[in-house]
Amino acid sequence: MGYSVAPLARLVEQFESLPGIGKKTAQRLAFYVLNLPDDRARAFAQSILEAHEKIHPCKICQNLTDQELCGVCSDAKRDRSTICVVESPKDVLAFEKTKEYNGLYHVLHGLLSPMSGIGPDQIHIKELMSRMGDGTVQEVIMATNPTVEGEATAMYIARLLKPMGVKVTRLAYGIPVGGNLEFADEVTLYRALEGRSEI
Amino acid sequence: MGYSVAPLARLVEQFESLPGIGKKTAQRLAFYVLNLPDDRARAFAQSILEAHEKIHPCKICQNLTDQELCGVCSDAKRDRSTICVVESPKDVLAFEKTKEYNGLYHVLHGLLSPMSGIGPDQIHIKELMSRMGDGTVQEVIMATNPTVEGEATAMYIARLLKPMGVKVTRLAYGIPVGGNLEFADEVTLYRALEGRSEI
Repeated sequence: MGYSVAPLARLVEQFESLPGIGKKTAQRLAFYVLNLPDDRARAFAQSILEAHEKIHPCKICQNLTDQELCGVCSDAKRDRSTICVVESPKDVLAFEKTKEYNGLYHVLHGLLSPMSGIGPDQIHIKELMSRMGDGTVQEVIMATNPTVEGEATAMYIARLLKPMGVKVTRLAYGIPVGGNLEFADEVTLYRALEGRSEI
Repeated sequence: MGYSVAPLARLVEQFESLPGIGKKTAQRLAFYVLNLPDDRARAFAQSILEAHEKIHPCKICQNLTDQELCGVCSDAKRDRSTICVVESPKDVLAFEKTKEYNGLYHVLHGLLSPMSGIGPDQIHIKELMSRMGDGTVQEVIMATNPTVEGEATAMYIARLLKPMGVKVTRLAYGIPVGGNLEFADEVTLYRALEGRSEI
C-alpha cells in the first residue's frame, strides 16, 4: 500500500510472523490492539516482556517456571518414584489436566531427529540421566508423541535407562476414547488389538 | 491448572482476549512468543507500544497516521474535489488496494446505531461537514457497508450534505465479480437488476 502507516505496518508484520496467523487475521488483530485502551495495550506488551524475562527451565525437570523449581518439582505431595518424560511443556499441561498423574516430569524440549541435526546433546537427556543417581526413581514413563521421532527418542532413552535397573514404560496405543473404529488407521487398530485387555 | 506459571498464564490470557483467538490458539501463540529470541520478543512488545503512542487520527480525514496529516491528505496529486466516506481505516486500505480511486477519504470511526447509543456526535460527522466550507468538494461518495446501520448513516449524512449543493453518491449494489447468480440473495439480485446498465 502506498500510504501505509509505518508503526501500524510493523505491528501487522509482528502478528503475521506468528504461526497460523495470515495477512487478514494479522491486520484484524493489529487494528484491535490499536483500538485497545492505552493501559490494556501496555499490559499486553508488558506480558510479552515479562514472560521472556521471568520464565526459564526448572532446575530439575526442565519444565518452564518463574521460580527456581517448577510447581510440580517443589510439591512435596508428588510421587518422586515416577518420572514422565515428555517432549514439550505443553505436554505437561495436557497431563496435569487429567488430574490423574501424581509423579514428576522431565521435559526434553525436543526429540531426536538426525535428519534435522538434533542429537542426544541437543535435548535434555543428560539431565534426565543425572536424576537417576540416588535410586529414588523406580519407573520412567516414556510419553513422547507416537511419531517416528517420538518412538526413536523413547527407544534411545529406554536403552540408556535399562542398565540402571529402572523400569521403563510407554504410553498405551489404541483407539481414542469417543473415537470411531471406522476412521481409525490400520496401525492404531493393530496396536489396539495387540494391547487388548480382559474385562 | 494447579501448576501454572503466572507470567505464562498472563501472556496466554492476553492472546485469548484478542478477537477470534480461542484457548488452544492463545496457548500456541504464547509458547511461540516465549520461544522467540529475546530481541524478537522485545520488537513485538515494542511494536505494540509504538503503534499506540505514534498512531492517531489525521487532522483532516480522521484516518490513522503517525504524521500530522495522513498520506492521502498530504499527497498533492490526489483529487481534492471528491471525498469517499467510510466506516473504518480498514475500508481505506481496501479502497487503496484497488489503485483506482484518486480522491480523498473521510473515516467516520463507526456508524450511527441508536440501539447501541451511537448518535451523530459519537462518529466524525461534524469533521466531515467542516470540510465542505470552501466549495472545493464537488462529490461525496457514501461508501459505508450495505448493512442497516451503514444505510442509515449514509442517508443521514446525505440529507445533511444535499442543502450544501454537494453531489452525494452511493456505491453500486450488485453481483460481486466472480460471484455466482445461484448463490446471490434476493435483495442483491433485485438491486443488480435495478442498477443494470447498457452494454
